[in-house]
Amino acid sequence: MTDGGFPRYSPRMDLVLHTYWRSSAAWRVRTALALKGLQWEAAPHNLRTNEQTAPDYVARNPQGLVPALEVDGAVLTQSLAIIEYLEERFPEPPLLPADPLERARVRAFALAVACDIHPVQNLRVLRMLRARGLDQAAVDGWAREVIEGGLEACSRLIADRSGPYCFGESITLADITLIPQLANARRFGARIDYPRLEAIEVAALAHPAFAASRPDAQADADPA
Amino acid sequence: MTDGGFPRYSPRMDLVLHTYWRSSAAWRVRTALALKGLQWEAAPHNLRTNEQTAPDYVARNPQGLVPALEVDGAVLTQSLAIIEYLEERFPEPPLLPADPLERARVRAFALAVACDIHPVQNLRVLRMLRARGLDQAAVDGWAREVIEGGLEACSRLIADRSGPYCFGESITLADITLIPQLANARRFGARIDYPRLEAIEVAALAHPAFAASRPDAQADADPA
Repeated sequence: MTDGGFPRYSPRMDLVLHTYWRSSAAWRVRTALALKGLQWEAAPHNLRTNEQTAPDYVARNPQGLVPALEVDGAVLTQSLAIIEYLEERFPEPPLLPADPLERARVRAFALAVACDIHPVQNLRVLRMLRARGLDQAAVDGWAREVIEGGLEACSRLIADRSGPYCFGESITLADITLIPQLANARRFGARIDYPRLEAIEVAALAHPAFAASRPDAQADADPA
Repeated sequence: MTDGGFPRYSPRMDLVLHTYWRSSAAWRVRTALALKGLQWEAAPHNLRTNEQTAPDYVARNPQGLVPALEVDGAVLTQSLAIIEYLEERFPEPPLLPADPLERARVRAFALAVACDIHPVQNLRVLRMLRARGLDQAAVDGWAREVIEGGLEACSRLIADRSGPYCFGESITLADITLIPQLANARRFGARIDYPRLEAIEVAALAHPAFAASRPDAQADADPA
């Protein structure tokens, strides 16, 4: 059974995604859910007003971060762990290649974003920098430095690859992490002069799964 | 076939680990290799003198980070991606539980360390802070703040668990990431008043795999 070109599961389970429209990590999970054709209910938390630190949410996710995915009431946290869970439970379409070396390379690309770029430029760190007395220009410069160095490494990790997506003809976990990071790059005015990364972004954003998962398509979006 | 209580593989492959004795992420991979009973050759890179930025190494690992694992010449990067590869190729002993929800929880714990603590307190970020004019005391305070908040969340992620290790009777990926992070906590004088985490550390460091992988047991160790 397909819908919009990808299979649709009808699991006997309730999926509730704790999300925030502009969270990169929540965007990753939204994309994976869309690719797997899974229906979910949104529980939005406004990070700008620190709603994710409310006691009833922290009781569910001790890190006080989004995303978290409730699966029949069981709470899963950390975007990449959630996506690996979805991959194991709902294998089609695969978000990781079959070959172990290739799986390792896709995961490494995703971790290069999820460990070495995103956490070092996210809201929490930028707030810590402001608390140390750095002004907004210096904080934005920090984010740009982290993003630009990280994207350069990412572009080199896939320098020997071709095709519309990071690792070829199919969307993988690599694309799922790259696209939100490129959006962050634009928000901070970081230099993106990597034609291949930009071409991947164009291809991805034209796909219905990314169109459905992008921040400005979320019910809690507040562009103001 | 067992040796020291864990199985030993004799793969027809050459494993070369690009490492640095004090790197938390390299320590994770060393522990996984020891648990799987795999033999490897060390290629050390001194991070203090930026040896990991040498052109011949960056040609292999564009991120210019350790660890990287060469498998018959194929270079794998990012500690968690390398460990997932080892888990897929050499399943015994398992470093992840069998149940999908439990696998997700172990991975989430590991990512809570590998994304939300370690990259925000590592050498690269501390150098960036120094370059912004923060003095050494302020930089150390930054590291302590990140580590203390992170360890508190980690302790709550396993608050309903018991047993010698994070998730029970067996060493998992969670322990593999926690132990190096606790060592970092001690280096920065961070508060560790989580009896369960400390008990896990005692149990882990008494295990031969951690004894073999710990920083001061490495050939490139330079305590001076």
